[in-house]
Amino acid sequence: MGAEDLARVRGAAILVIGDEILSGRTQDTNTGYIARWLAQIGIPVREARVVPDIEAEIVAAVRALSARYDYVFSTGGIGPTHDDITADSMAAAFRTGIDYHPAVFAALAARYAAMNIGPFNEARQRMARIPFGASLIANSLSAAPGFQIGNVFVMAGIPAVMQAMLEDVRGRLAAGRALSAVTVSAHLGEGTIAAGLAALQKTYPDMPLGSYPFSREGKFGTSLVARGSDAARLAEVREALVQLVKAAGAEPMPE
Amino acid sequence: MGAEDLARVRGAAILVIGDEILSGRTQDTNTGYIARWLAQIGIPVREARVVPDIEAEIVAAVRALSARYDYVFSTGGIGPTHDDITADSMAAAFRTGIDYHPAVFAALAARYAAMNIGPFNEARQRMARIPFGASLIANSLSAAPGFQIGNVFVMAGIPAVMQAMLEDVRGRLAAGRALSAVTVSAHLGEGTIAAGLAALQKTYPDMPLGSYPFSREGKFGTSLVARGSDAARLAEVREALVQLVKAAGAEPMPE
Repeated sequence: MGAEDLARVRGAAILVIGDEILSGRTQDTNTGYIARWLAQIGIPVREARVVPDIEAEIVAAVRALSARYDYVFSTGGIGPTHDDITADSMAAAFRTGIDYHPAVFAALAARYAAMNIGPFNEARQRMARIPFGASLIANSLSAAPGFQIGNVFVMAGIPAVMQAMLEDVRGRLAAGRALSAVTVSAHLGEGTIAAGLAALQKTYPDMPLGSYPFSREGKFGTSLVARGSDAARLAEVREALVQLVKAAGAEPMPE
Repeated sequence: MGAEDLARVRGAAILVIGDEILSGRTQDTNTGYIARWLAQIGIPVREARVVPDIEAEIVAAVRALSARYDYVFSTGGIGPTHDDITADSMAAAFRTGIDYHPAVFAALAARYAAMNIGPFNEARQRMARIPFGASLIANSLSAAPGFQIGNVFVMAGIPAVMQAMLEDVRGRLAAGRALSAVTVSAHLGEGTIAAGLAALQKTYPDMPLGSYPFSREGKFGTSLVARGSDAARLAEVREALVQLVKAAGAEPMPE
């Protein structure tokens, strides 16, 4: 059984493309950024995957994720070097062709001519290759665009560029109600309030309650987190979490 | 087409379990740590996934990954609270049962009795539930063990605990030759040396060459990275990368 056999769900998936993440050379931070950005507009992230710079792997992941989720956000692999194979892989995943995009080619040529950043050689020209039927995603930082193909948003791996591209994507998404979280932390073990938390979850089945142990300044504690889109109900759950902590003989910590 | 339809490959997958990663609340660092740790013993990480605290999702991911890769390393979801469902999900994935493990139960009971860390209540007792047929993974930090079921190593999400558990796993892995990397960095755009790098990749098809742009102290540059297990060939590639950088009119930076 694979993700393909599971029911479709509302929400988004993130696809991180790059050997450098899988080798541990580069710490991915794009997943967390995209997740928090999407939560603000009410779109939950349901799954994330990291795949290597291998076309068959990218194609398989794109097809599985784009079939199951409303949106897929990919990062990485759209630069000028031989291991940047994301654009070709996306074209393959959607069974379409790819070629130099005239407007992108012209814009990149103009940028390289105007700035002292090297020649607009064959490698850099590759960044103008866009799958047929894709729409562009503007890159306000370094010109080479991302693109949207089907429900997949293909973005750069460099965090600052990816973040700039997300802003151009915002208007294309059907926003839900913003997802917020309330947190209550205290110096107690999560096992101490686990039963009470489980009972509370049954009272609020639509708002996921999580429990996260931490260690700060040598003292252990637990953060209780509730998520939802209704501010009044979030406040209600927050108060219930405070009472849970107090009933266990602890004091909620200042936020 | 999903990962299930792709050929089996040697190496490992990482499965991160937890809503807190997908919401962006917690930054995953376990993936990078496990990847670097495995590289030292010659096991490459081929794929990573993050799934929510939902049994069907965990089961689907475990089955897909354990069928395809030599090893799967999971993190998260083995604590005492209602959202800690990894042990039950692993039992379901392997179509076996689960119950309290007598030795684990006794060890946890003794620990809670001896230390001032709260009562050994029903929630904490859940941490003694281990799928049938699993072998334990020692937790030298906080006693509640991980476990190995089939080719899946089930570990805690808290980084320090996960890292301690990995040490107990080491002896169970068929180590390959350690994977190393050499890096040559210079202040030049990656598009400038892309063609030379692609040609070099053809000369060394078994050693993945990567190109990673960076910005340090306001200056842009590129790091060229070669990976492999043969020290002599790595040194050879490193020298070729130095010559590539010099031919482009730049100087390799000190490591």
